[in-house]
Amino acid sequence: MTQPIAIGIDFGGTNFKVALVAEDGRVLVKSSAPTDTTATPESVIAQVANLAESLLDDGHIARENVVGAGLGSPGPLDFDRGMVIHSVNLPTWENVPVRDLLAKRLNLPVALDNDANAAAFGEYWAGAGKGGGDFVMLTLGTGLGAGVVLGGKILHGHYDNAGELGHMIVVPGGLPCGCGQRGCVEQYAAAATVARRVHRAIEEGEDSLLSPMVKEGVSIDAKTVVEAMGKGDAVCKRIWDEACTYLAIACVNIQHAFNPESIVLGGGMAEAGDVVLDPVRSHFARNTWRLESDRPHIRLAALGYDAGVIGAAGLAWNAVAEVRPRDSLTP
Amino acid sequence: MTQPIAIGIDFGGTNFKVALVAEDGRVLVKSSAPTDTTATPESVIAQVANLAESLLDDGHIARENVVGAGLGSPGPLDFDRGMVIHSVNLPTWENVPVRDLLAKRLNLPVALDNDANAAAFGEYWAGAGKGGGDFVMLTLGTGLGAGVVLGGKILHGHYDNAGELGHMIVVPGGLPCGCGQRGCVEQYAAAATVARRVHRAIEEGEDSLLSPMVKEGVSIDAKTVVEAMGKGDAVCKRIWDEACTYLAIACVNIQHAFNPESIVLGGGMAEAGDVVLDPVRSHFARNTWRLESDRPHIRLAALGYDAGVIGAAGLAWNAVAEVRPRDSLTP
Repeated sequence: MTQPIAIGIDFGGTNFKVALVAEDGRVLVKSSAPTDTTATPESVIAQVANLAESLLDDGHIARENVVGAGLGSPGPLDFDRGMVIHSVNLPTWENVPVRDLLAKRLNLPVALDNDANAAAFGEYWAGAGKGGGDFVMLTLGTGLGAGVVLGGKILHGHYDNAGELGHMIVVPGGLPCGCGQRGCVEQYAAAATVARRVHRAIEEGEDSLLSPMVKEGVSIDAKTVVEAMGKGDAVCKRIWDEACTYLAIACVNIQHAFNPESIVLGGGMAEAGDVVLDPVRSHFARNTWRLESDRPHIRLAALGYDAGVIGAAGLAWNAVAEVRPRDSLTP
Repeated sequence: MTQPIAIGIDFGGTNFKVALVAEDGRVLVKSSAPTDTTATPESVIAQVANLAESLLDDGHIARENVVGAGLGSPGPLDFDRGMVIHSVNLPTWENVPVRDLLAKRLNLPVALDNDANAAAFGEYWAGAGKGGGDFVMLTLGTGLGAGVVLGGKILHGHYDNAGELGHMIVVPGGLPCGCGQRGCVEQYAAAATVARRVHRAIEEGEDSLLSPMVKEGVSIDAKTVVEAMGKGDAVCKRIWDEACTYLAIACVNIQHAFNPESIVLGGGMAEAGDVVLDPVRSHFARNTWRLESDRPHIRLAALGYDAGVIGAAGLAWNAVAEVRPRDSLTP
């Protein structure tokens, strides 16, 4: 191949993924491998770089056609210094200058952002937000990850920690969150927390189609909850609907804070499709103000689990566009 | 005077204010006059322009030393077209191209923003946020007005309505708001709503030092509430503390959304000084997450009722700086 490409890397505590991504956001080729959480950061970075280079070699892509690499990493990060400060899932990572280490290893410019922001940028650039304006993504997975793109750029904030919308308090004094707060929207509206709330309701004696699973110690996930709802389960329906209600209230607050063109729902809970989108839209319309001209579109994510690698590559493309402005390069 | 100045105009439904403002944000001279809400928009604009010109004449300021004018106006506005779409307090104003009308009348470039944003920009540029980074202002007056300044610019959002933080829902299903929502922070934490809640509690039979006032039909304001608290009134204390709690929760949500350097409290309720600042800070510390490195400073506003005219002038200075970049001109 002779077309220019960027390397997108989605770096996780379980696996890392690498993709070669064209200027229009198309994934040309991708691969993944398990992350060795016991190895030194330098060794992990070498593994990531090796996988990227093998993809280039397999595709017969000349190095001069690679514009750069982007890395979505768990955080918190120090953006100025391109560092992973620490990571819950990567115990050996403390103040690792991952951007510069990877840049040196690949001999390429590297753009760094956190994983939730990279996924949000992917959807903005090449997915559900493509061609639109200011954009907010909510990833409803183990937690509620989020990313905010304003004026084509990921919002970092003064202390590098903007867009942590999963920790928006929607229920003062509500359920405790691992972050130390109470009533975070993440505790109500993420794939894992919905499943956990159903499990707890059953443990506390509510009768559900899933009661036998709980008794047998089988774990419940969001998909199980959606299936039980489809069979008319009242407990699952109530907890799912509460999740959608609080998600809608979060969307109202996002509307008034950022007034984005769209809010996109991704992650495990969003795999339910219209089963999540329809109630969120209807609770949103019921909860927001009368003015209709400033309402964001609420949509489902389009890129699935590739959003992270695509967004990371998009950051690399964006960095190129800033150095060498050209209309076709701006997302 | 030969120093360059910008004209700042704060345009309200009761009065309009005009100030001549130096490049460092100092007000050189100011004046105000009642707004004639029955006159045509053209006639009102002529009155505003006349007052500005009389200030220039009185100060012997040559026209070539005036860099431009800024206007803070009630809204909603159409920023692209520089228009007031309509205004609750100005019944004759419908789709008025106020920016261009004023520019033509003054023969100067005019920058337009809404009144809450102009006040926020004033505090950011020359007041409590001076020299700092990303900035959020909450004006706790009749309602809860807000403005967000990111990267030195007021955030407008895709639909021109960002930063409407008074309508952040902090109590799902809570008190009804004029906007059509329930549980907006404005219904709990603004000068007028605190006074209204005290009034209602007394009407509903609670015993307060202010009960005789309510019985006699004397109106209560935030200052009265603070005075009664000072004398140990339990009803006022409870409602004030609730206001500060919900304000603190709003600040937590602002922290996670924008992660600004500072959040500044202004308006009538903020005139209570430490009586509002101390409880908001302490409820904030109690309600936010464990991470301490990304907490915004919470401060009182510094410019009082001049924030609007100063901010409007700051917008004019900013527009000049964009056309003719010079370090000293950027805020």
